[in-house]
Amino acid sequence: MSRLDGRTFDEIRPVSMETGFAKHAEGSCLIKMGGTWVLCTASVEDGVPGFLRGQGRGWVTAEYGMLPRSTNTRSRRSLTGGRTLEIQRLIGRSLRAVTDMDALGERTITLDCDVLQADGGTRTASITGACVALHEACEYLRKNDRINSWPLKQLVAAISVGIVDGEPMLDLPYSEDSRADVDMNVVVTADGRYVEVQGTAESDPYTEESLAEMLRLARKGSDELVAQQRKALGLEPVAHG
Amino acid sequence: MSRLDGRTFDEIRPVSMETGFAKHAEGSCLIKMGGTWVLCTASVEDGVPGFLRGQGRGWVTAEYGMLPRSTNTRSRRSLTGGRTLEIQRLIGRSLRAVTDMDALGERTITLDCDVLQADGGTRTASITGACVALHEACEYLRKNDRINSWPLKQLVAAISVGIVDGEPMLDLPYSEDSRADVDMNVVVTADGRYVEVQGTAESDPYTEESLAEMLRLARKGSDELVAQQRKALGLEPVAHG
Amino acid sequence: MSRLDGRTFDEIRPVSMETGFAKHAEGSCLIKMGGTWVLCTASVEDGVPGFLRGQGRGWVTAEYGMLPRSTNTRSRRSLTGGRTLEIQRLIGRSLRAVTDMDALGERTITLDCDVLQADGGTRTASITGACVALHEACEYLRKNDRINSWPLKQLVAAISVGIVDGEPMLDLPYSEDSRADVDMNVVVTADGRYVEVQGTAESDPYTEESLAEMLRLARKGSDELVAQQRKALGLEPVAHG
Amino acid sequence: MSRLDGRTFDEIRPVSMETGFAKHAEGSCLIKMGGTWVLCTASVEDGVPGFLRGQGRGWVTAEYGMLPRSTNTRSRRSLTGGRTLEIQRLIGRSLRAVTDMDALGERTITLDCDVLQADGGTRTASITGACVALHEACEYLRKNDRINSWPLKQLVAAISVGIVDGEPMLDLPYSEDSRADVDMNVVVTADGRYVEVQGTAESDPYTEESLAEMLRLARKGSDELVAQQRKALGLEPVAHG
Amino acid sequence: MSRLDGRTFDEIRPVSMETGFAKHAEGSCLIKMGGTWVLCTASVEDGVPGFLRGQGRGWVTAEYGMLPRSTNTRSRRSLTGGRTLEIQRLIGRSLRAVTDMDALGERTITLDCDVLQADGGTRTASITGACVALHEACEYLRKNDRINSWPLKQLVAAISVGIVDGEPMLDLPYSEDSRADVDMNVVVTADGRYVEVQGTAESDPYTEESLAEMLRLARKGSDELVAQQRKALGLEPVAHG
Amino acid sequence: MSRLDGRTFDEIRPVSMETGFAKHAEGSCLIKMGGTWVLCTASVEDGVPGFLRGQGRGWVTAEYGMLPRSTNTRSRRSLTGGRTLEIQRLIGRSLRAVTDMDALGERTITLDCDVLQADGGTRTASITGACVALHEACEYLRKNDRINSWPLKQLVAAISVGIVDGEPMLDLPYSEDSRADVDMNVVVTADGRYVEVQGTAESDPYTEESLAEMLRLARKGSDELVAQQRKALGLEPVAHG
Repeated sequence: MSRLDGRTFDEIRPVSMETGFAKHAEGSCLIKMGGTWVLCTASVEDGVPGFLRGQGRGWVTAEYGMLPRSTNTRSRRSLTGGRTLEIQRLIGRSLRAVTDMDALGERTITLDCDVLQADGGTRTASITGACVALHEACEYLRKNDRINSWPLKQLVAAISVGIVDGEPMLDLPYSEDSRADVDMNVVVTADGRYVEVQGTAESDPYTEESLAEMLRLARKGSDELVAQQRKALGLEPVAHG
Repeated sequence: MSRLDGRTFDEIRPVSMETGFAKHAEGSCLIKMGGTWVLCTASVEDGVPGFLRGQGRGWVTAEYGMLPRSTNTRSRRSLTGGRTLEIQRLIGRSLRAVTDMDALGERTITLDCDVLQADGGTRTASITGACVALHEACEYLRKNDRINSWPLKQLVAAISVGIVDGEPMLDLPYSEDSRADVDMNVVVTADGRYVEVQGTAESDPYTEESLAEMLRLARKGSDELVAQQRKALGLEPVAHG
Repeated sequence: MSRLDGRTFDEIRPVSMETGFAKHAEGSCLIKMGGTWVLCTASVEDGVPGFLRGQGRGWVTAEYGMLPRSTNTRSRRSLTGGRTLEIQRLIGRSLRAVTDMDALGERTITLDCDVLQADGGTRTASITGACVALHEACEYLRKNDRINSWPLKQLVAAISVGIVDGEPMLDLPYSEDSRADVDMNVVVTADGRYVEVQGTAESDPYTEESLAEMLRLARKGSDELVAQQRKALGLEPVAHG
Repeated sequence: MSRLDGRTFDEIRPVSMETGFAKHAEGSCLIKMGGTWVLCTASVEDGVPGFLRGQGRGWVTAEYGMLPRSTNTRSRRSLTGGRTLEIQRLIGRSLRAVTDMDALGERTITLDCDVLQADGGTRTASITGACVALHEACEYLRKNDRINSWPLKQLVAAISVGIVDGEPMLDLPYSEDSRADVDMNVVVTADGRYVEVQGTAESDPYTEESLAEMLRLARKGSDELVAQQRKALGLEPVAHG
Repeated sequence: MSRLDGRTFDEIRPVSMETGFAKHAEGSCLIKMGGTWVLCTASVEDGVPGFLRGQGRGWVTAEYGMLPRSTNTRSRRSLTGGRTLEIQRLIGRSLRAVTDMDALGERTITLDCDVLQADGGTRTASITGACVALHEACEYLRKNDRINSWPLKQLVAAISVGIVDGEPMLDLPYSEDSRADVDMNVVVTADGRYVEVQGTAESDPYTEESLAEMLRLARKGSDELVAQQRKALGLEPVAHG
Repeated sequence: MSRLDGRTFDEIRPVSMETGFAKHAEGSCLIKMGGTWVLCTASVEDGVPGFLRGQGRGWVTAEYGMLPRSTNTRSRRSLTGGRTLEIQRLIGRSLRAVTDMDALGERTITLDCDVLQADGGTRTASITGACVALHEACEYLRKNDRINSWPLKQLVAAISVGIVDGEPMLDLPYSEDSRADVDMNVVVTADGRYVEVQGTAESDPYTEESLAEMLRLARKGSDELVAQQRKALGLEPVAHG
């Protein structure tokens, strides 16, 4: 059964990742997944938060925002909504899980993910795009001889899956997401392990079998996104990260 | 291999659930899971938030707080931290997933979960205890002839699992949680389906096999918690919710 | 004329003070005065606020909160309401008045008073309970050889009095307090001197004679509370503090 | 023994009350007590806060502020400090105690007390001046035929007393207040009854006898202030309010 | 004398205005003036703020933001900084000056101007771009038969001028702006009148003659921008607006 | 054609400037321009904001506030409104433009401008009065041998002009300002140069000619204000500042 936009249930939306979009940032990526566009920048600053000071280790953190009219109806500007804070915590955790903080040295990389246009899956697109921006920022550090070893252990990508009308689906746009029974976000590394699994039943709890199928779809999607990340970064189709 | 507190890897901590602890509330439960104590109250108010008004349906929401000295070092009072908002959103979603909003009618039940003492697993204990308080509040509505049908579709319980020193473990206290590689919270209904799965790798991503084993442990733990909930509520050992 | 709960006009409610309730705190006391339950903890931290730094003297401060459903109708969580700030300033002042800041040394003791259940007199119960928690924290410092002399000059207790239906009454529960003409809180030391007298006419100003009678009742009540504090702390019925 | 400014222990500072200072307000008074200058305005608005609506009764409330350089060292502008909130609650309560809310009708009078210059006793000067402004606002309502009966039951004044170097003193300027052992604010009606008594020991608790002497001084001072209020309002030296 | 980027003193930077950039908004324009990129959206909502209700007239308002890494060093996200509020007030006023509020009817158009990349002149680019977005939103209203007469009285554009090294210059990039003696923003209508003139001496006040020359340059620049607006909107090179 | 208050179109309102009004401040001036009264204080503090530290240079900043009942209807107290922030930024910039920061040394002068009564032109009266207070604070520094050279390069004054009923007018009171087509504030130095020109069309954009005439009026007015400043400061009628 094909979906409104013609995709099959296990197909991701057309993806593009444009690096170097923000000329001031040490790394940046404008990621587009269908109608969801997120501008991700990586900013390098010396120093780390207080609780890490003096240990010679780095820190990666994230902030997430939506332009007020990125959505169908205008939303109020806000910095502290529960949803916003939850998403930026997720992005930060996901990228920290693939970063070698010792290699980074006592500096902080802040990943700003700002949604220019929203059509479902903004948090997962943010993670995927932020990873590209982070890679670029690491390149910047390497080129400027500020690090001795490569801090990004491997690439990481994220994708949404869900159950819509009883069927597991990959990469939900807003029209599907808003009527899904289950909404799941999965963050997967290039070597196929999980960084984060978050699956929420909106009203109808889900079974073991549904969970297994959704995870299978998510891994298929994330593999494809990692391939796109490598292409955007000009890396060989297979190797390191 | 036994744990510091003598439990096996698949054992939950001693649990108690005391109903009626807060005399002013329509429902309440003081849940203790080892050293984690959470006072959960359910408050019934007429009316619903604006986006639901006039539809004859109810709403369930949650707030979460920690007393400043519930933890080992005193923490600052705060209402808007990202962690706090994230947890109260999780509690609210979990209880809404088992509530029949039509049966509830145009009223709001607010579940306040206040941690008196913390030793790991405060968010899962909050969900388990809040479900008991919610059940009591439904009883209050039924006894006062304010509802026509029973609004709580089934009981729901939550438990933490994780990977500590490479081993999957059930129901982590703070000492294990703080050094776990993976931290997972699972919300499971009485009939064994998932409301929420949230598994986070702190630094080391986890495999398919680890995920499967953690889910198995979580289901074992949640079954035991549902049995305790039934006992605390004076329900028959088996039936509905 | 006896009162709704059977007490005479000069009788306090049944009191209990349970020390050691909060396992993480250096001192703690769960005080119950009738239906008013307050969890008081004392947290010891090194260092003092900026205006005291470098003088070798300590500081005692307090924070006060009410759980949202400690009252008959649920109240909104808030940290900055005028009533809250006023009460925590009162608690802090009262305890500072009996503390020898030189003996304490350059450290801060924070007294958190969180109302689990409210039935009138929460601020006075907080002071009485906080004094017990503070005594315990001083014991903790003495046992750990961190002080050279005893910092608590004497015990202090607080009680409410008021004029209800034209009659002076001791220790008002909510039902009396809400219709009292005058509401007075009195903080008295073990040696019978005043730390604080706060008497407010709700609508009908009061005379010299009424004031004198209310003060007499308050002193009777505070004497009884000090006796209870000594018992809870395992001190001899009479001596120092 | 005479004081730094030449007064005896039971003498108040030179007082002036200038009515009509603020041309836009329905009532206003610039009160000067020595070096303490407070501009008090009374603003009449239709309507009352939600909890009073529809009862035909009025409301009186107060706000208090200090200009940043009213004090010796510049202080930061702030609306929500604990001291500020506590003082404005005291002012509001004091004026409500002498107002007949039924006579006022469903309207709100807001008393703004802004300290232009501070030299001790700003909260008591605020109450005394606000009472004059309130009287003027009532006059405004009467002249405009908006009330049927007079809402101000009687005048009210406030004064500080304290114990300095072991001696009870009336009306403390900052130089005395800052080294006083006890600081007490007393609000007294024209007919000699108490609206509020607030006595705080800074470090040394005070005895019954000290309290009695301070109250005696306060009554002397408030009598003199009421006489000044009557003069400023152009009332006969003796009668009601 | 030519400038760093090769322009003459009275030349504006390369400009592009891309309409329809934001698919959800009723009007939008991505304006690029050299390295300054601003995404402007116009959102139409029914209803007006309280002070205008029931008059049958509309309202135009603006919000302005900068992405954290739109600038050379990352700046903190904030909604309430003085600079932000000042700029959004300026944008709103400028567009209201060319809008016929009666023709608009009781609806609000919110212009969101979000700076994706900053290189001087972000507030003037915002006004110029917002005018294009506003024109598009009016078109949307006209096409959907929701208005009877055209609400945009004429186009308006804005440009910066300044005195750099003693020389008047048009359209300053950041490198010139940061060392300018005078910084002026001028908002001019299509028919050559002023909506706003704001000229600020950073340290050296400026003469009558300098002011006259700066205004002359500003009018030249704004004429060119209006021509570009007409082109972007597909309007005839000359006529109405 | 004469105005409501009898002035001609190019006449300023009666002005008075009372120095030394605030006894605690290093400099102060109560300026009255017709019904607009602003209390300006200058507070000297050692140290400068972080971005200036260690350069041996000073800083001048301003804060602006209105007493709630300074206006015809009471307004809510607020510190962060856009208008407030915009005005205090304008005052600060204007005074910095005439201050020699090297001569000031590493200290900060804060100019607090608090409107006691408002009748149009509060921001311009604030600048004019703040300049007098700043001059006094410089005198204070000179007398106390804390500076080596005089920091105030020259006096500065500000005045409003506007177009009312098609006619340019000088120094608008509220009754004219509220129906003006154009509202302009001009800040002019003693030697006749501009520090700031801010002219805003409320609804009808204005021509070159109108702008020229308004500037001419503003210069006339500011000359008269500088003469008044010199008188208030006891300076010779002509010379420097």
